[in-house]
Amino acid sequence: MPHNRTLQRPVILGIVGDSATGKTTLARGIATILGPSRVLILATDDYHRYDRAERRANGVTALSPAANHLGILEQHLRLLRDGQPILKPSYDHRRGTLGRPNRIEPCDYIIVEGLLGYHSRTLRDCYDVKVFLDPDEVTRIRWKLARDCAERGYTPDEVMRSVEKRAHDRSEFIQPQRTFADMVVRFFPPEGEAEVAGSRLNVRHTLRPTLPHPDLGPVVDAGGRSGFRLTLARDVDGKPVDVLDIAGDIDGRRARSVEDLLWSLIPEAHHLRDKLGTYVDDNNEPAVSHPLALSQLLVTYHLVKAALGHTVI
Amino acid sequence: MPHNRTLQRPVILGIVGDSATGKTTLARGIATILGPSRVLILATDDYHRYDRAERRANGVTALSPAANHLGILEQHLRLLRDGQPILKPSYDHRRGTLGRPNRIEPCDYIIVEGLLGYHSRTLRDCYDVKVFLDPDEVTRIRWKLARDCAERGYTPDEVMRSVEKRAHDRSEFIQPQRTFADMVVRFFPPEGEAEVAGSRLNVRHTLRPTLPHPDLGPVVDAGGRSGFRLTLARDVDGKPVDVLDIAGDIDGRRARSVEDLLWSLIPEAHHLRDKLGTYVDDNNEPAVSHPLALSQLLVTYHLVKAALGHTVI
Repeated sequence: MPHNRTLQRPVILGIVGDSATGKTTLARGIATILGPSRVLILATDDYHRYDRAERRANGVTALSPAANHLGILEQHLRLLRDGQPILKPSYDHRRGTLGRPNRIEPCDYIIVEGLLGYHSRTLRDCYDVKVFLDPDEVTRIRWKLARDCAERGYTPDEVMRSVEKRAHDRSEFIQPQRTFADMVVRFFPPEGEAEVAGSRLNVRHTLRPTLPHPDLGPVVDAGGRSGFRLTLARDVDGKPVDVLDIAGDIDGRRARSVEDLLWSLIPEAHHLRDKLGTYVDDNNEPAVSHPLALSQLLVTYHLVKAALGHTVI
Repeated sequence: MPHNRTLQRPVILGIVGDSATGKTTLARGIATILGPSRVLILATDDYHRYDRAERRANGVTALSPAANHLGILEQHLRLLRDGQPILKPSYDHRRGTLGRPNRIEPCDYIIVEGLLGYHSRTLRDCYDVKVFLDPDEVTRIRWKLARDCAERGYTPDEVMRSVEKRAHDRSEFIQPQRTFADMVVRFFPPEGEAEVAGSRLNVRHTLRPTLPHPDLGPVVDAGGRSGFRLTLARDVDGKPVDVLDIAGDIDGRRARSVEDLLWSLIPEAHHLRDKLGTYVDDNNEPAVSHPLALSQLLVTYHLVKAALGHTVI
C-alpha cells in the first residue's frame, strides 16, 4: 500500500475505455515512470455490483452503469481526493467473484482505470487529466482474445460471444464517454496490414484544448517528415482539436530525440526517465514501443504539471 | 434495504458491549418497536480487519482496535449521518470469513451495535444516544455459551478458552467505553440465584445526566415498593447518576402500568407500542420480559425525542 504523500492532495488521472483497450498497460507504464510507491492504481472493475454468475442470471453486462456501484465510486474518489482512506471493494477477474474489501490510502498520484469512469458529471469532476483509449476495433479484439483466454479462463468462442453481447452497451455507455476526455489515444495498424501488432502499431493522439498541452512545434520539427505529424482538425463532434500521429515504424534514434524534447518540457521530472515505453509483449517478454513511450510522456507531462500546482511548499 | 426517510438526518443509537451482552436482542427489540422498515441495524463486527484464521495466526482478538477498520467505521458513520449511502463490509460469524460488501442506504433510525463503537472521540460524536451493556459476567458467559455453540459452531471448551484469551482486551478496550454511555444497562440474577435466566433477571439502568432522561418520579410511584427503585448514586467513576432498578419478578400488571406511564411521556410514539419486551428464549420460543420492555422503552424515549428534533416540517 503506497503511503508516500508529499502533495497537498493527490493528482488523479482517469484512463477510460472498453475492455482490452490497453488501460492496464498504460496505467502500469505511467506508474513505473512516476515511481510505483507514489502511485495508486484503482481499477473501477472492483466496483462491479454483481459477480459473473449474477450478471449471467440477470442478463446484464459489466458495461452497464446499473451493474456497477457508481455512486460509491463517486464517493470514494471524492474521499481520496480529500486525502482520506477508503475501504475499496474487490472483484476477482479470474474467478469472476466479489471478495473482501481492502483499505486503501491515498498517495501522490492516483490512476483510476476502467469502463465507466466518466459516466457522471461528479465522476468527471474528480480528475486532473482524462484519457480515453479507443484502439482500432480489430486490434482491440485481438488484445481481448489474447488476454481473456490466457488470464481469465475463457475460450476464444466465449470471448467472441461476449464481444457480441456487449456491443449494445459499448455503444450506449462506453464510447459516448470519449467526448469528455482531454486526450484520446488510438492504436491502429498501418493501412492494409491489419495483422500488425505490438510496437509496430501506429498511435494517434487527439488532444482537446481542455488542457494546456505542451507546445509540440519543436517536437514535430525534430520528428521530421517520417513517422511524426501534428494536424489541426475537427473531431467527430465538430470541435477543434490537435491530432498528433506517431508511426509504429518511426526510426529509433529519431523517436528518442523527440522524447528528449518532450522531457525537456518537464525538467521537474528528469529523474523519472527510466523504463519509458516498456511493455510486456505477446510472448510475455519485455519490449519497448516508441508510440507507447510518447503516449506515456504526453500524459506524464500533465500529471507532473498538475502535481507542481498542488505541492505544499 | 430500508429506504424510508422522513427525517432530515438519521437518528443514531449506539449499543456497545462485550460479546454476548445482549446487543442484538436490544437492537432488534427497538427496531421492532420503531418499525423495521425505518431502522437500519449496523453491526460493527462487519468492520473486522482480519478473518478468524488471520486473527489466530496473528495472535490478535476481535476486541482489539487494531483488528478492526475503526477509521473506516468513523468515515461510514459520518457519511450515513449526512444521509449518504455506504458500501459496508461484511463478516460472516458462522464461517469466520470476510465477504463482499453491500450497499447500504441511510434511513430514519440507525442502530450501531458492536464491540468498539465508543473507542474514539470521532465515533462517540456520531451518536444521538449511547447505551452500554454490562451484564453480570456469569450471565454473559451463559449467554455466550448458548449462542456460540448453537449459532457459530464452537464447542463449549472453545468458548471458555476464547473468554479467557479475550480477558485482557476486554478490560483494556471494551469495559473502559462504559464511561462514555448515556445509559448503562446491567442484567443480573437475584442474589444467591446465579442460575436464574431469561425474563426473571433483574435489570439496573445507570442513567447519566448527559441526556435529559424522563422524569421518573411518577413512574417509580406507580411501581410501588416491589420491584421498582430509583436511587441517586455515585457511579464507579464518582460521577452523580440516577440508578433505576427493575426486578425480574415484578408483578405483570404493575409493570404494565409503569410502561403506560413511560408511553405517556412519548405521546408521539403511541402507534409504535406493539411487541414491547418480546425476545426469543432459550427454547427458541417468543417470550416477554418486563425488565427488557422497560429498557427498550427508556432507549426508545430518547430516539423519538431526538427524531422530533430532526423532523423536516
